[in-house]
Amino acid sequence: MAGAANVASPDGRVTVDVNLTADGSPVYSVDFAGQRVIDDSRLGFSLVGEDALASDFELIGESRATFDETWHPVWGEEASIRSHYNEMLINMRHRASGRLVDLRFRVFDDGVGFRYEFPAQQGKLKSFIISDELTEFAIPGDAVAYWIPGDYDSQEFNYTRSRLSEIRSKMDEAHVGGPVYPSPSSPTGVQTALMLKYDNGLYVNLHEAALYDYPAMCLDLDDTNFIFKAALTPYANGDKAIIQTGRTTPWRTVIVSDDARDILASRITLNLNEPCRIADTSWIHPVKYIGVWWEMITGKSSWSYTDEVDNIAIGTTDYTTLKPNGRHGANTENVLRYIDFAAENGFDGVLVEGWNEGWEDSDATRKSRMFSFTKPYPDFDLERIKKYAADKNVKLVMHHETASAVTDYERELDNAFRFMVDNSYESVKGGYIGEIIPRGEHHYGQQMVNHYQHVVEKAADYKIMYNAHEAVRPTGICRTWPNLVSNESARGSEYHAFSGINPGHTAILPFTRLIGGPMDYTPGLFENDLSKYNPSRNAWVNSTLTHQLSLYVTMPSPLQMAADLPETYEKFQDAFQFIKDVALDWDESVYLEAEPMEYVTVARKAKGSDNWFVGSTAGVDPRKSKIDFSFLPKDCKYRATIYRDGKKAHYRTAPQDYIIETKTVDSKSSLTLPVASCGGYAISLTPINNL
Amino acid sequence: MAGAANVASPDGRVTVDVNLTADGSPVYSVDFAGQRVIDDSRLGFSLVGEDALASDFELIGESRATFDETWHPVWGEEASIRSHYNEMLINMRHRASGRLVDLRFRVFDDGVGFRYEFPAQQGKLKSFIISDELTEFAIPGDAVAYWIPGDYDSQEFNYTRSRLSEIRSKMDEAHVGGPVYPSPSSPTGVQTALMLKYDNGLYVNLHEAALYDYPAMCLDLDDTNFIFKAALTPYANGDKAIIQTGRTTPWRTVIVSDDARDILASRITLNLNEPCRIADTSWIHPVKYIGVWWEMITGKSSWSYTDEVDNIAIGTTDYTTLKPNGRHGANTENVLRYIDFAAENGFDGVLVEGWNEGWEDSDATRKSRMFSFTKPYPDFDLERIKKYAADKNVKLVMHHETASAVTDYERELDNAFRFMVDNSYESVKGGYIGEIIPRGEHHYGQQMVNHYQHVVEKAADYKIMYNAHEAVRPTGICRTWPNLVSNESARGSEYHAFSGINPGHTAILPFTRLIGGPMDYTPGLFENDLSKYNPSRNAWVNSTLTHQLSLYVTMPSPLQMAADLPETYEKFQDAFQFIKDVALDWDESVYLEAEPMEYVTVARKAKGSDNWFVGSTAGVDPRKSKIDFSFLPKDCKYRATIYRDGKKAHYRTAPQDYIIETKTVDSKSSLTLPVASCGGYAISLTPINNL
Repeated sequence: MAGAANVASPDGRVTVDVNLTADGSPVYSVDFAGQRVIDDSRLGFSLVGEDALASDFELIGESRATFDETWHPVWGEEASIRSHYNEMLINMRHRASGRLVDLRFRVFDDGVGFRYEFPAQQGKLKSFIISDELTEFAIPGDAVAYWIPGDYDSQEFNYTRSRLSEIRSKMDEAHVGGPVYPSPSSPTGVQTALMLKYDNGLYVNLHEAALYDYPAMCLDLDDTNFIFKAALTPYANGDKAIIQTGRTTPWRTVIVSDDARDILASRITLNLNEPCRIADTSWIHPVKYIGVWWEMITGKSSWSYTDEVDNIAIGTTDYTTLKPNGRHGANTENVLRYIDFAAENGFDGVLVEGWNEGWEDSDATRKSRMFSFTKPYPDFDLERIKKYAADKNVKLVMHHETASAVTDYERELDNAFRFMVDNSYESVKGGYIGEIIPRGEHHYGQQMVNHYQHVVEKAADYKIMYNAHEAVRPTGICRTWPNLVSNESARGSEYHAFSGINPGHTAILPFTRLIGGPMDYTPGLFENDLSKYNPSRNAWVNSTLTHQLSLYVTMPSPLQMAADLPETYEKFQDAFQFIKDVALDWDESVYLEAEPMEYVTVARKAKGSDNWFVGSTAGVDPRKSKIDFSFLPKDCKYRATIYRDGKKAHYRTAPQDYIIETKTVDSKSSLTLPVASCGGYAISLTPINNL
Repeated sequence: MAGAANVASPDGRVTVDVNLTADGSPVYSVDFAGQRVIDDSRLGFSLVGEDALASDFELIGESRATFDETWHPVWGEEASIRSHYNEMLINMRHRASGRLVDLRFRVFDDGVGFRYEFPAQQGKLKSFIISDELTEFAIPGDAVAYWIPGDYDSQEFNYTRSRLSEIRSKMDEAHVGGPVYPSPSSPTGVQTALMLKYDNGLYVNLHEAALYDYPAMCLDLDDTNFIFKAALTPYANGDKAIIQTGRTTPWRTVIVSDDARDILASRITLNLNEPCRIADTSWIHPVKYIGVWWEMITGKSSWSYTDEVDNIAIGTTDYTTLKPNGRHGANTENVLRYIDFAAENGFDGVLVEGWNEGWEDSDATRKSRMFSFTKPYPDFDLERIKKYAADKNVKLVMHHETASAVTDYERELDNAFRFMVDNSYESVKGGYIGEIIPRGEHHYGQQMVNHYQHVVEKAADYKIMYNAHEAVRPTGICRTWPNLVSNESARGSEYHAFSGINPGHTAILPFTRLIGGPMDYTPGLFENDLSKYNPSRNAWVNSTLTHQLSLYVTMPSPLQMAADLPETYEKFQDAFQFIKDVALDWDESVYLEAEPMEYVTVARKAKGSDNWFVGSTAGVDPRKSKIDFSFLPKDCKYRATIYRDGKKAHYRTAPQDYIIETKTVDSKSSLTLPVASCGGYAISLTPINNL
């Protein structure tokens, strides 16, 4: 057979060409409607101690298939998702070694997924070590990129918008206010999902799907030729991945459109994941929660119980002999207050951080055992709290900060989850601050990717919904494991209290971080001046109040927090009503307006309800948002409650200037709404006959 | 207070001096009966990212204590052990940082233990990373050393006897026939327990005791000045140890005498460990076992079930569809044959290796999941075997080869141990061949030391006796955790079938490897010519048959194998009688003759019995062993059954030339017995009135 093959999407607009060069190196390219998306780009691997699988290949087979299915996620942005693609499987043989490598391409109308597959090949190849994945993404020109620095241990950076040619010079600035222990992939490295905008108007998104038993990929840029190359997160010893024949790599994805809204509407990432592996999903449900959390983040109270000792030994330190510091947030009375607030306002859960032994030492991320996952502090009366919550029909949300003492966490995992089941916790927020133990491992290497998956699957065994912070960025595995209800894995709201969140952040996250799955962004911050909570916390929340409301629609998650303090919400009961009303799970989503880092406007129909919600989030530039309501069913009138920026609203000078108004709309209506700098709006839509 | 302190042993013969040099560096020295054992030697640490704790110290306190206790091990060489020492605790303050470091010395009549302690010191020091332990052992002269290469991943070397000054030049030779993946500590590195002989006749042994949560120590030699320095096994990222205040290092031990027998009789290593932590030890008992093992080691049969596939995926590969290779050792009929043999000969257990899925891939030590610990091969009928063994009152001994896929093993550990309990297994042989996962970790680093301990403690939870191969060399923790019934952790009998075992090996192991605890050496090899088992196995067991018998006394272990094949023992029923008779647990031990690498002769009284057993093991030089029986109680006659080398006996030319004779002896008797090259003898002594 020839050294070339190609495949097109069902609508014929996306095409992929695969060729072998003269020396037998596989290359691929991608086009969209006749425009170049990815120029000829290399494929292959270097191996440890063995010949590279990068050239000297011959094509020995090729097969094609078409797939069209509609499936139903347990939760998400839509009740039904269509997966429709043409597939091409290319079988290659490495001439010198006889080893076999397959390439599988799936071409959808909105982009491409491809992966490497290593078929069983008795005597030729079984387990091998990848020293480098050579996959390239050659960008045809000096595109605009919306990027965060490539890093093996953190994703919590502000975004930078720049030309590819500017990445190197802007790298230092891109690290400012970032995490404490960065592990940069290279001076031009960036992370996926990477959003790009070409000068010809194409929007292109590069990410990966179904990341299992493999390191996460950064992209290092050859900024002379604008070629990105995979930079796999290494093991402590420098190896990149151990892989066995019979297995595959994750999918590498290229989403493309000439309309930015299509990037948000793309379901390629989910569609490239396997169907749900949990037989009974009846226990997985949306959770709207508040938490004893923001008061610690702002420094109003503390996670730790005592200031008396700083070398806690879990199992040895006797807290009952230690003097409380008087600032401990997770004390019984305070937790009961949050439970009251949750019950009064219809919340499902109350997260309590700092409930467990170990926080006095939480900066000592070198310890092999940091926290107890079963032993509350003396002033956290679990029995009383548990009973109180049960009486009020509120669930406690567990917190498992590991401080990245992963070896210990795995050993404790069964005990920790059994403790949750025994005490009626249904969901857990995990955390991985600090440096990983095993020492030298990175947050996104194969060892840790396997760890997170181990926890997700173990949680499923216990019917626990899991939400990991600082874990590897998601890649759509929530389709297969829907108990992974959320992740942080990006710069979340908490940075408003730390080094700050740049304007435009929530208008880029839907194009990047959320491509892989929902984010526990923890929106709902109504108080901008954090010195009101803690005089020494000189920090400001960079958004208007109605911007915060919009996030419940633009940043969908089945696990969604109202992050601010109960006493603050009590001051803004009218605006808080939207958080109480908004759904967390959806039948349908319509992307009304979108431009990376500028604005995102989405309408969504609540699952199993006739109610719709609209959210519009803006970056630093004030704007007018013009939307129509053609997404509504015809001939049905809706009462629209609109929460929008007031006339003087501005994220710095008047963030709490908002207007709440009601209108009657139908599918023929349109509205033009002013949006402030870092502003936004939210709309609840209820059919008039339901009122 | 002054910058100097000293302490002597209860009998005054061993003395330790501690001084601060002019720059505040702590140094210590050790003397024995006025002779220098350890010259002035540095103490201290380098830390990662912080000032070293090595100089600039002042002494701020000193305290002393005397300790005299007799305790009773659950099993061992003696029913009662006396721990008698003088202790000196020195409190030091690092002037610049104010940080506190204590030094604790315990001085026994036969040597010294010392360790570092890091007291809690609020605000000054809590968790820190050790980049180098600076502890030295300055040897006063070019002593003779009996050494194996310092290594972070293997202990399975032949021993070399040389002057210290020759270590560097003999290092390459010392690696010959050694393990496949050596990780040398340095060009002059050696391992502990290190045996030394000084020109003045002193015997000195350097090791460590109570190794918990710390890396194992090699010793790198400054061969100009004959100063050994601690070389801690590093983490994958190069760090050495993470330690928290409130904790201590392991003990560094110096055993010393002018009589080599005293080194074997020393109980310093056990005495420096903590008392037993297992409340109910009734389930811990000696186990004499045979095993489906030597037939695989010699290549007569195979661990693996099939040759059809080589990329096994545990949980996915369906063995019932695969063609058996016809050479699988752990098949039901063969196991039943071993059970019959065990029952007929009074053995407690039958080890079966290769019973479980995964062995086809066992050279692929890169896989994160190598073996099932709960799923037998199709031809291993567990239910039938289990019932058969129960009917014959024989216990199966479990085998957990991990191939060092440690992350997976920890995840499976509860399932694996529960499976053992459910199927009446009481003891397990573990194994750690290959490179460690987490990748880049070493077998003896802190991460793995913690792992082995985790397994030992988890085994205790399930009342399982544990015996680890390729795990870190023991340091007396079997006192505290007596379910750690044995370890390999040195070059064991199996090397007779591989690259060979040098003459003298079993005459040095009691001075080195066994200082830390019993060894699962797997003695009892009666057939020297291994090509008789497998024509392609051109290997020879370097010992006489009665040498093999002697090892049951000279290399005591509560878990003791008869390693050869049942069909071989059936050919030598008269000699095999000794293995059937010999005890595994002892009331008393008397060291009759000892010279490192030359010979070891020991008499031991069986626990709770009047029977005694004597074993004498020789190196390459034939000799005459003259012993008297003054260890026997007075006025009691014993029938001695003597298994000794015949006239032509020689390990190469006539290893199976042996004589069995009986004599009547009492406490006034003496005997001179000829011992062949790599020969030995064994004696059973039974009181005449008991006959």
